[in-house]
Amino acid sequence: MHSIKNTRFLNVLNNEPVDRTPLWIMRQAGRYLPEYLETRKRAGDFMTLAGTPELACEVTLQPIKRFNLDAAILFSDILTVPDAMGLGLYFEAGEGPRFKHPVRTPKDIENLATPDPETELRYVMDAVRLIRRELNDSVPLIGFSGSPWTVATYMVEGSGSKDYHHTKRLMYADESALHSLLSKITTTTIAYLRAQADAGAQALMVFDTWGGILTPRTYQLFSLGYMQQIVDAIRESHSSIPITLFTKNGGMWLPAIARTGCHAVGVDWTLDLRDARALTQDTVALQGNLDPGVLYGTHAKIREEVQRVLESYGAGHRHIFNLGHGIHQFVDPENVQYMIETVHELSPAFHK
Amino acid sequence: MHSIKNTRFLNVLNNEPVDRTPLWIMRQAGRYLPEYLETRKRAGDFMTLAGTPELACEVTLQPIKRFNLDAAILFSDILTVPDAMGLGLYFEAGEGPRFKHPVRTPKDIENLATPDPETELRYVMDAVRLIRRELNDSVPLIGFSGSPWTVATYMVEGSGSKDYHHTKRLMYADESALHSLLSKITTTTIAYLRAQADAGAQALMVFDTWGGILTPRTYQLFSLGYMQQIVDAIRESHSSIPITLFTKNGGMWLPAIARTGCHAVGVDWTLDLRDARALTQDTVALQGNLDPGVLYGTHAKIREEVQRVLESYGAGHRHIFNLGHGIHQFVDPENVQYMIETVHELSPAFHK
Repeated sequence: MHSIKNTRFLNVLNNEPVDRTPLWIMRQAGRYLPEYLETRKRAGDFMTLAGTPELACEVTLQPIKRFNLDAAILFSDILTVPDAMGLGLYFEAGEGPRFKHPVRTPKDIENLATPDPETELRYVMDAVRLIRRELNDSVPLIGFSGSPWTVATYMVEGSGSKDYHHTKRLMYADESALHSLLSKITTTTIAYLRAQADAGAQALMVFDTWGGILTPRTYQLFSLGYMQQIVDAIRESHSSIPITLFTKNGGMWLPAIARTGCHAVGVDWTLDLRDARALTQDTVALQGNLDPGVLYGTHAKIREEVQRVLESYGAGHRHIFNLGHGIHQFVDPENVQYMIETVHELSPAFHK
Repeated sequence: MHSIKNTRFLNVLNNEPVDRTPLWIMRQAGRYLPEYLETRKRAGDFMTLAGTPELACEVTLQPIKRFNLDAAILFSDILTVPDAMGLGLYFEAGEGPRFKHPVRTPKDIENLATPDPETELRYVMDAVRLIRRELNDSVPLIGFSGSPWTVATYMVEGSGSKDYHHTKRLMYADESALHSLLSKITTTTIAYLRAQADAGAQALMVFDTWGGILTPRTYQLFSLGYMQQIVDAIRESHSSIPITLFTKNGGMWLPAIARTGCHAVGVDWTLDLRDARALTQDTVALQGNLDPGVLYGTHAKIREEVQRVLESYGAGHRHIFNLGHGIHQFVDPENVQYMIETVHELSPAFHK
């Protein structure tokens, strides 16, 4: 693995020193980049873009070419998994993702396929292989999936939701059906992440976007418990591949997340890294947590807030700089460039 | 004030003992009630409903007539304030609230009116007076407003938002313009809440629905700081009117919220009341925090979760039972009835 030229990101995950804080950006290959919009237009629709290895590779590399980033992340979507399970993912213009066949009843759940990723999600693995070849070991490639809970909310609601009422109904009226669904998604997700690692992903991340809508107890039962199974499975089969867990709005649950045995925990901007570090006691690396809105600010403000994040983590080599959530689509890439330069300039002081 | 027959709710706010845990439900006058839908249909649109004192009174009383609740809450909307400030509130079918004239520039902010509530929001005060007469001192009436921050997000975005990018842009690119806006909203909100108290509201609540999208520092600066001004002003002018603050997703900030001098703090379902109580040390009453999704559950599950909330708070008289957020529109009123009966049955054990 250490034939990679830029090892900062993997060093931090493996608890080894670095000269400065490594940096990547959630959703770094995305709509704020004009070159992304151009490729997306050429592809016609999102699924063609994500589903064509050459195009997925192209957009994955766009931010790497434009900026000095310390990791690439596969361009894909957390909903490719349920799509392969037979739900029929599609995107309406101006709307979020939707499924043709949402899963609501025990029978729907029983009928769900558990696809073989190397065949039914082969386009993802082909993209991973192609990206690795194109990256040529310049920076490591992160593979990812959604958390079973987060993926389940989309599968049950059929789209994004405000109150997740179908999912909550299942949770409180037919808990065992929800557990069956989560088990199927977990089985598929483990196979999917293993296949990404086999295809060349050098780190893995699980995005639990909607874990934060749960109670402490139901978070443990319906979200973290299944992420624990994923961490255990990957550690068993791919012990050299570090894995990061990220629950948005999960600040209060950081100690429990860190105890899963994951290598890093993503932190959103609603808590100080100082507190996140106190809660996790340096047992894991912390990834985050600039408010994505800062990138709408002036250079002076961006600098001030980057410094604040670095100081909040403090001295130590287990911090990966990132936003607290995905980059917004209306951000000016020039401000991203400035943020990156500022991290390069200011962070070495924390690694003396 | 204690001519009121059911004093449980006010007792808890005033730190006096009660025989059982008082209970009301956020958005208790709402779409889950067939009688509400009927009145709403008769009104034609939401603004006519909220803007006609007789209709607002009618729907405010509907849940009081149907259930055995310990408080009524004025039927209105947090966006009546910016509507009176000249933004032109309207509702599109199936969409959330929108403004005809969003506020984006320093000039927009400068031009904002600060209305006199007794004239420009007279329909609200008339509703309060009518409701008090109709309630006939059976249960106390809660008046409310949005937090300045939450109201500002709608005023700047012009509608609900996913990433609040206009507001964040203002925050990080023109902080002083945002402070001007928040000051104007705060001035208006203080006058509005005082007018509600003068018209007969016996308790006040400030809903900070979107404080949870801020960082710890910007929450203090842009949300809590302005709620502090409201608490100070109401305590000064209306020292006998208890005031409750509720920041959704503000669990980690409970100690700071409690320190404002408010009488109660609303708690969403993402943390245990046990932890909320430890964080606030019985300096305030706690209001919450059943997951609204529980009301989709079986009776057995509702009972289990009600017991869990009561046990989580534990013995003591400073708990107001409520949901952790507004009741969902697809809930069966029969399940609400069962939840209420269960609180009546199980809570006296915590007040021995």
